[in-house]
Amino acid sequence: MDAERAQQLADIYRTELTENVIPFWEQRSPDPEYGGFFSCFDREGALYDNTKYTWIQGRFVYMFALLYDRIEPRETWLQASRRGVEFIRQHCFDDSGRMYHAVSREGQRLMPPWTIFSECFAIQAMCQYALASGESAWLERAQELFWRTVELAQTPDLDGTSYPEAPQLIGHNVPMILLNLVQMLQEAEPDPRYKQVSDEMMHRILDLHVHPEERAVFENVRPDGTLVDSPMGRLLNPGHAIESAWFLLHEAQYRQDETIRDRALQMIDWSLAAGWDEQYGGLLYFVDFKGFPSVFLEWDMKLWWVHVEALYALLLGHYLTGREDLLEWFERIHAWTWEHFPDREYGEWLGYLHRTGKPAVTAKGNAWKGFFHIPRALLLIAELLEEMISEEAG
Amino acid sequence: MDAERAQQLADIYRTELTENVIPFWEQRSPDPEYGGFFSCFDREGALYDNTKYTWIQGRFVYMFALLYDRIEPRETWLQASRRGVEFIRQHCFDDSGRMYHAVSREGQRLMPPWTIFSECFAIQAMCQYALASGESAWLERAQELFWRTVELAQTPDLDGTSYPEAPQLIGHNVPMILLNLVQMLQEAEPDPRYKQVSDEMMHRILDLHVHPEERAVFENVRPDGTLVDSPMGRLLNPGHAIESAWFLLHEAQYRQDETIRDRALQMIDWSLAAGWDEQYGGLLYFVDFKGFPSVFLEWDMKLWWVHVEALYALLLGHYLTGREDLLEWFERIHAWTWEHFPDREYGEWLGYLHRTGKPAVTAKGNAWKGFFHIPRALLLIAELLEEMISEEAG
Repeated sequence: MDAERAQQLADIYRTELTENVIPFWEQRSPDPEYGGFFSCFDREGALYDNTKYTWIQGRFVYMFALLYDRIEPRETWLQASRRGVEFIRQHCFDDSGRMYHAVSREGQRLMPPWTIFSECFAIQAMCQYALASGESAWLERAQELFWRTVELAQTPDLDGTSYPEAPQLIGHNVPMILLNLVQMLQEAEPDPRYKQVSDEMMHRILDLHVHPEERAVFENVRPDGTLVDSPMGRLLNPGHAIESAWFLLHEAQYRQDETIRDRALQMIDWSLAAGWDEQYGGLLYFVDFKGFPSVFLEWDMKLWWVHVEALYALLLGHYLTGREDLLEWFERIHAWTWEHFPDREYGEWLGYLHRTGKPAVTAKGNAWKGFFHIPRALLLIAELLEEMISEEAG
Repeated sequence: MDAERAQQLADIYRTELTENVIPFWEQRSPDPEYGGFFSCFDREGALYDNTKYTWIQGRFVYMFALLYDRIEPRETWLQASRRGVEFIRQHCFDDSGRMYHAVSREGQRLMPPWTIFSECFAIQAMCQYALASGESAWLERAQELFWRTVELAQTPDLDGTSYPEAPQLIGHNVPMILLNLVQMLQEAEPDPRYKQVSDEMMHRILDLHVHPEERAVFENVRPDGTLVDSPMGRLLNPGHAIESAWFLLHEAQYRQDETIRDRALQMIDWSLAAGWDEQYGGLLYFVDFKGFPSVFLEWDMKLWWVHVEALYALLLGHYLTGREDLLEWFERIHAWTWEHFPDREYGEWLGYLHRTGKPAVTAKGNAWKGFFHIPRALLLIAELLEEMISEEAG
């Protein structure tokens, strides 16, 4: 990428982060009364539900702490982060140590534990808050919760949604998030046991979910990695696969391992081939490997997180290899993303577009969309572009 | 409606039923080996999943038995119905008498019980099969399961998805289906206890879910009928409310009660006002009473069942009152429905359209769409039109 374009893009991404995305959330999401964060805002920024979803609580904490470290040490960010992580600790765990799926504004339990992701985002929150604040007790809590969650992740059918007679499927989302977590924890405080976990998670992603002969990343496979010819077994989630790929690219950087790097890039290549919508542009949410109708009604929607994760993955892939085709893909998805997602009227970004690119659900936030994918990607992309510029100049 | 138009429409609805919809399903859904029915067909009619979802099993059984009684006593229909109801009895109940949500082709349990609707459609299946076959043991089984299900419906948080601290909400779908079931059972074999059930269900629909001051039918309310200002509490489901209204119109006919009739018609009027899409035509799937963004990504899709249930409700409302505006609504929705849903290329009807009317998910069947709403509505509409013609001529 030429230096002028890199500078132009770096400015776009950093300005969008600091002047549009951060202000939208910092003005309205921290709950001044009970701590924690509101996330359910409509297009204009009005709160339509004050439920506190635990995934989202962890993600907000993480993000404000990260910004404190990487943008500027603004006291209000650290305070929002602290009041969030304390809210999580006080209100989001049941007696057995599992985390509720949702609690009320005041912190009363509302919805029972569901999957391991509430735990995963709480680990991320505690770890990043510890780094920002220097309060090492939070790192210990993150570590303790991490090892418990690694155990939990091994429980077959954790949520009791199937029977042993059903084909047992394992999900790509689990090794993907655990790889990301172990990378964060290792960076915060090295521990020789982490390598075993990241080895195992990489093995699961690359040897069980990635199928080179099919040129595809399957979201759900049997525990031995073989494929199941059912809607869940044929499910491709291009956005997930691409996000997972950049976690692997980070691992490849850390280990200086080109094999991991190249296998991660294959995941990106194949997912773009499966997910890019030739008709309207943008990346589809879900694809059936054999082309059968999706069992997800939202399969052809264009989602914010899919696009911003793809942008960072592509830029990083280009940076690590110099591959021009990845830069072309970056520019293609950059153009589509910036044309359709940012909301210049009311601020922040739309999250859910119809296949055509028109708004489908105009909420700025809900149980799933909050202050996470967009600011994280904007920051990582801006930082990487600045790194590229500085290396070029140096 | 003038007699010529009525005859034209009667021909359209009856012909569509017998020459398009029935052939599609009778050729491919009965499983010749294990009994029961396949439902997951793609647009062209290829099977993409052989899971047997129990809701769908009951609905298929009901429909083939109904056609046997009301179209012609075709032996293959009765046989398909029998092999379905036997499959349900043999394979779809757990040891406690609850019904699995899904079983395998061979009848092995796959997914645990979920809500009371598997039971409800099994009751409908057993009752209608008993009427078609004359085998009274099936009616007894239907009755026994009905009374158990009435009990089950009173269990708070049956599926364990919330806590007592959460606002307790009751759903409109429960009294609605129980009213429909008790009507069928009463017709099959009168029992004085049924009136108490239908009184109770009508009370719940009309006094708890219908809110005249808001001119709306709320899907979820507190047990005392008060409203909750949350996404679930604000949820309107116009198709459900309209389907529920025609169950009430049947009750009004049976009881010769104009108050019930007029209250049911209000539910239709308000639901059309809330659900009709001025921009693209057709009825929206979900609407937030206060106009906030939906928490359901599919909120603005146009669904097959919503439209065919509205057509029957409107025609029946017109027939019972002579109200011309209901006939105009019938013609408006008739035009939209027949322009967008029937699949003239591969047969049967599309189920899931984008807001614009373009196909979104092209499956002919899945865990929810099978052989039920379309054939039932086509039959009821054709029969009602023929009744209208015959009354006019008489």
